[in-house]
Amino acid sequence: MYIVILAGGSGTRFWPLSRKSTPKQLMSVFGGKSMLQRTVERVIPMRPKRVMVITNALQAAETRNQLAYIEGVPVDVIEEPVGRNTAPAIGLAASMIARFDPDGIMAVLPADHYIVDEETFRKTLDAARSVAEGGSLVTLGITPTRPETGYGYIEAASAGVGTPAAVLRFVEKPNVERALEFLATGRFYWNSGMFVWGACTILDQIASFMPELSAALAKLTFESEMWELSDLKPQIAEIYGDIKGESIDFGVMEKAQDVQVIPASFGWSDVGSWSALPEVMEADGDGHVVINAKGTVSVGSNGCLAYGNDKMVAFVGVQDLVVVDTPDAVLVCAKSAAQDVKKVVEELERLGKNELL
Amino acid sequence: MYIVILAGGSGTRFWPLSRKSTPKQLMSVFGGKSMLQRTVERVIPMRPKRVMVITNALQAAETRNQLAYIEGVPVDVIEEPVGRNTAPAIGLAASMIARFDPDGIMAVLPADHYIVDEETFRKTLDAARSVAEGGSLVTLGITPTRPETGYGYIEAASAGVGTPAAVLRFVEKPNVERALEFLATGRFYWNSGMFVWGACTILDQIASFMPELSAALAKLTFESEMWELSDLKPQIAEIYGDIKGESIDFGVMEKAQDVQVIPASFGWSDVGSWSALPEVMEADGDGHVVINAKGTVSVGSNGCLAYGNDKMVAFVGVQDLVVVDTPDAVLVCAKSAAQDVKKVVEELERLGKNELL
Repeated sequence: MYIVILAGGSGTRFWPLSRKSTPKQLMSVFGGKSMLQRTVERVIPMRPKRVMVITNALQAAETRNQLAYIEGVPVDVIEEPVGRNTAPAIGLAASMIARFDPDGIMAVLPADHYIVDEETFRKTLDAARSVAEGGSLVTLGITPTRPETGYGYIEAASAGVGTPAAVLRFVEKPNVERALEFLATGRFYWNSGMFVWGACTILDQIASFMPELSAALAKLTFESEMWELSDLKPQIAEIYGDIKGESIDFGVMEKAQDVQVIPASFGWSDVGSWSALPEVMEADGDGHVVINAKGTVSVGSNGCLAYGNDKMVAFVGVQDLVVVDTPDAVLVCAKSAAQDVKKVVEELERLGKNELL
Repeated sequence: MYIVILAGGSGTRFWPLSRKSTPKQLMSVFGGKSMLQRTVERVIPMRPKRVMVITNALQAAETRNQLAYIEGVPVDVIEEPVGRNTAPAIGLAASMIARFDPDGIMAVLPADHYIVDEETFRKTLDAARSVAEGGSLVTLGITPTRPETGYGYIEAASAGVGTPAAVLRFVEKPNVERALEFLATGRFYWNSGMFVWGACTILDQIASFMPELSAALAKLTFESEMWELSDLKPQIAEIYGDIKGESIDFGVMEKAQDVQVIPASFGWSDVGSWSALPEVMEADGDGHVVINAKGTVSVGSNGCLAYGNDKMVAFVGVQDLVVVDTPDAVLVCAKSAAQDVKKVVEELERLGKNELL
């Protein structure tokens, strides 16, 4: 299997840790290795044929730097000149794989998701590969554990743990009433944005539903030497001028006929904001989650997240806060307002404080 | 007039900014100059004969260093080998002054108080000097602006702005009901810990009410050369071995007959904890008080205090917090719990984290 990692995101909801040149996937959000490094390491035991990391020009150097230590599996870092959402990136990777390995199966994984049970994750990917070898488009659907309104949902034709089911439809983020209805059926899953399919299968589907993208991808010519990315770079730059941005969900998945969902329960979060970390990380005796700090002291406090910049963090009489300390900025945020961190970034842009972006 | 500044305090309620070797008075609590520097600069326009700063061995070097720039007025830094509360420090300074200037009047000022209107402060000290020249012990009583339960009170025989009145009694910190009763009389003042008296007057009173301290001070011998502190240091070390710690309030003021209070209204705070700063500093448009920060961004937040370590501070969805960022520790504290910061210091002591104390 080929692993295609989508690593071009530039989220603003992890400011001040994430910046334009070092977005969430390149940062040590959980302490230690970056999310991208964790994503790559997670698949290494599967012995993939290649790991293809698709990123943008601004982040390419740091991406290469972070992955230089990976051994045993070839890692390609592919630069997009501009971000064009997921469909062009996936089409580009599929074109490269199909050129050299027409039967190749590819797994598409976001670089910035958190997975608790990595062994179960790999088993799920293996199961998805078996289904994909039959010619289906396969998506990993996370068995919901709460009526989450921050995720899209997938409705399957039938319920069943671990067994693939036909996808009836993709549903946008629901309100809480609808989310509760979804959970009651047992046939709805969170849309994880993780896919498995044959490279030629997805290219056929792109040809059917996204003819402009297909035509642009068809212009790519490959040298006889395999995986020579330096030859590819100017070609990518040229075709990206014509490509319009589109997600693979909207461009293909919602229109294709043979889409299967593999129900997955490996503990998952898309880590959409600071408040997502306490959901997947273990809290200390005071209910605080503490990352990269030199210890904490808690007096009459609980439920906080501290990202410590290698410092002691002391809480006194506070609850449910997010505190992030970086060398040039400090964020103090109510957990319930974590989505509003992007408003800080907007304000910094308005103020022209580029050094903090 | 001689200015005697009591600068030996080692408060724990301004952690993590204040540490054992750099307590509140030596720190830039308000940004810019330290509280000690502000205290000295505040009296320079009065052209005092000398400024005598009494501190301890741990803080002496930094104290000297901070005051090296003061010109035009001689500054003595006098080291106590151990802290013994205010009476011995005051007795020591009075002994030195009385030896060389028997008619000398001294003002005793804490090094770590905040004063808004410095011109009025100096006028009040001048008025106190006139009264002290008549042989009274004079204390500055702050006209209360709220039923504060964190200060001691002074009951005067009569009410009157700017005119001295006889002190009837000193009262410990009251509860809020009693504090309201005090305010209703118009004859109660906050005990500021600022005093003015003749050096020989206070030594006479110490002789009457604190005979042990008086006897110890009598052992001091002075070389013929004035203000030769290096000769004095070993003598101070010797007598401090026998002296027991006592406040001048309890040791003398509460027992003496002729004590006068000068009502004072120059805007005053003893800056007892982080939450005192917003009371005396100007807030920005979002109600935040920001010190030593590189700007702030506020989203749905108000009423916070940020001590910024030269960083941007961003608030999102939070109210009434104190956030203090230092190179090795971050404090996040509810304003209403600011008194509990000393519990953090106690916990750090228990954990043996001396590098943070």
